[in-house]
Amino acid sequence: MSDPQLFRIGLLGHGTVGGAFATLLEERADEIAAVTGLRPDLVGVLTRSRGEFADILERSDLIVEVIGGIEPARELILTALKHGKPVVTANKELLANVGAEVFSAADAAGCDLLFEAAVAGGIPLVRALRESLAGEPVRRILGIVNGTTNFILTRMTDAGASYGDALSEAQSLGYAERDPTADVEGYDAGAKAAIITSIAFGVRVVAGDVYHEGISQVTADDIAAATRLGYVVKLLAIAERFDDGALAVRVHPAMVPVAHPLASVRDSYNAVFVEGDAVGSLMFYGRGAGGRPTASAVLGDVIDAASNLRKGTHATIGMFERARMLPIDETSAEYYIPLEVADRPGVLHAVTGAFAVHDVSIRTAEQEGLGDDARLVFITHTAREADVQATLHDLRHLDVVKQVGSILRVVGTGS
Amino acid sequence: MSDPQLFRIGLLGHGTVGGAFATLLEERADEIAAVTGLRPDLVGVLTRSRGEFADILERSDLIVEVIGGIEPARELILTALKHGKPVVTANKELLANVGAEVFSAADAAGCDLLFEAAVAGGIPLVRALRESLAGEPVRRILGIVNGTTNFILTRMTDAGASYGDALSEAQSLGYAERDPTADVEGYDAGAKAAIITSIAFGVRVVAGDVYHEGISQVTADDIAAATRLGYVVKLLAIAERFDDGALAVRVHPAMVPVAHPLASVRDSYNAVFVEGDAVGSLMFYGRGAGGRPTASAVLGDVIDAASNLRKGTHATIGMFERARMLPIDETSAEYYIPLEVADRPGVLHAVTGAFAVHDVSIRTAEQEGLGDDARLVFITHTAREADVQATLHDLRHLDVVKQVGSILRVVGTGS
Repeated sequence: MSDPQLFRIGLLGHGTVGGAFATLLEERADEIAAVTGLRPDLVGVLTRSRGEFADILERSDLIVEVIGGIEPARELILTALKHGKPVVTANKELLANVGAEVFSAADAAGCDLLFEAAVAGGIPLVRALRESLAGEPVRRILGIVNGTTNFILTRMTDAGASYGDALSEAQSLGYAERDPTADVEGYDAGAKAAIITSIAFGVRVVAGDVYHEGISQVTADDIAAATRLGYVVKLLAIAERFDDGALAVRVHPAMVPVAHPLASVRDSYNAVFVEGDAVGSLMFYGRGAGGRPTASAVLGDVIDAASNLRKGTHATIGMFERARMLPIDETSAEYYIPLEVADRPGVLHAVTGAFAVHDVSIRTAEQEGLGDDARLVFITHTAREADVQATLHDLRHLDVVKQVGSILRVVGTGS
Repeated sequence: MSDPQLFRIGLLGHGTVGGAFATLLEERADEIAAVTGLRPDLVGVLTRSRGEFADILERSDLIVEVIGGIEPARELILTALKHGKPVVTANKELLANVGAEVFSAADAAGCDLLFEAAVAGGIPLVRALRESLAGEPVRRILGIVNGTTNFILTRMTDAGASYGDALSEAQSLGYAERDPTADVEGYDAGAKAAIITSIAFGVRVVAGDVYHEGISQVTADDIAAATRLGYVVKLLAIAERFDDGALAVRVHPAMVPVAHPLASVRDSYNAVFVEGDAVGSLMFYGRGAGGRPTASAVLGDVIDAASNLRKGTHATIGMFERARMLPIDETSAEYYIPLEVADRPGVLHAVTGAFAVHDVSIRTAEQEGLGDDARLVFITHTAREADVQATLHDLRHLDVVKQVGSILRVVGTGS
């Protein structure tokens, strides 16, 4: 074999992922050179305190962006593409918010813009959706795409912990930030849902299009009820396409049947469950975050981009149309609805009246005494979100209802 | 966008997969043309009773081979490649036995030879291993790659069915052949293990290199013991690379901890669990067989090959060296060992002596009375296969031992 060709890499960002990437590159350079005939060479690193972008760009064949956030990442990526340099990025905020702009710049430049690591860390989901499933109409995607919330829900399920205790444990283990809002309120999962939807359905969806609810209202009682009923509570990112072409994309806690493959995704692991027309059900499972898993995905893209560069080709990105989004009100599901009510005659009659008025049909009801009060737990048949919200509104105004707990949608039955 | 370019497909074989592929191609032609700019056109079908190969080859840009078996598939594929036509195949027997010959022919011709559907049906595993994990040293792969045996083991676990009853049920549902040998004795899984190992580790491994045991000796008692001890019994294909570069590849029934992701792979589903150095654990789950899932994987490859053809590139296949294989005797695991013994004084002492002589350390022991007899179940600490086999040999020659049941290796702990 002839001497491997050098490909020079400029690295933007040197945090957890950037540091792990630099280490990985050094560990693997010989092996990559032997296998691909391309020897990676890290020619420069840009951080807040060192490096000069113009100089690094000049000396690089390819740019790796792992700064995160929208600016200055956007500006730097656009400049690199304008200079004909392929870009590999792990930046979900950027893609979920201004993806169309950077993809269009990559297309105009005829350059690769690869982003396997931006969606599900080390899980090779993007390549599967873009290439393996290129001829496969995807119907629905259900994803556990946030490790922090999955860890918290797993602890609540296994140890009967409260949300607060499980969150504290996640924080002390470094799985949750001191301000956990982006994770626990579903913003992070929403950004990933936007990117996954764009690739899977070939449409343009941004983070702001994604309805999201978090897990901070999920109680130990809800988890216990789910377990009793044969379900596991998961924060799911859901994207589905209807026959008329409309899309619904949302993030919310959901009850998943215990035999569903997503139910066995534990701790901080992620998984994406894909329902295709001919291929049936697929699931991709792995580490959705962390320095080395994410750096491994970045490295896979770098090898791909370097090999494309040598062949003189690049991955094609469709210029997607904006999607027609179905508002959350028009989606349907089965609903788990917990209520605290006064324990006196006529209560069940009053409560079920609110359901009947809005055409929400009850599949199971459970009542548990709590002294003067009682806890009622309903699971509905498939119902429209708008009808369920109207029911909840009426329930909140009933004298006998002390509190309406947080609802959970039941997902993954019959698949 | 300009008119889509035609790509002409010659189809060899029109059984379950071939028929599903032809249907899928017709359903999707417009969509594929719109998305890729390439319009697929089925120009000819070769079956035992119709079509002429030379004529089909002449009129095709690309050949799809779904005949199965080694001949005439090998001959036809070699001829197609010699004529510079890319080939997509779903043929695991061919690749597991004469893979080196056809890959070398593809390399010489500078043509794609793609085979996503040959390994795990609709699961996009090959692309993940070849592309996404190109820079990732894989340490171990654990696969449930045979749907028939997974269905049988699931029924034995859920319903307490005997092996015979579960097999009959699988046959009546069309999940098992009338002669189930290839599935239940591990030949099918062994062929897939050879291909997976070749791709994951970049070495040449053939079906004959793979040690295999089947599931026909697994009893309802074994399944019940596994459940009691917190395990699920699965037929696993296992490939691992040791630090000195040696490989061990084997197929055998194994006890998997109930919390391991592979434990939740039920019915006829397949899954492949990959342990990488940096990426950590990954799992790919889906339909490993069936007409439409397999045809979907074939179609993904066809689109890839057509797009490569247009760009004037092709996938690179390493010309692999033969692997250095570790004999099964030198592998290590924890072992589940069930015995039927006489229920009289001194038996446990005699039996445990056989373990001690061969340095096999016992982790747990369970005894259950059965009238005059007793059932003893041991799980060992990690032990060498050769030592365990020597222990089993001695046990079979003890007067007090009525029967040595089939052993199960414990796999997937501590990962």
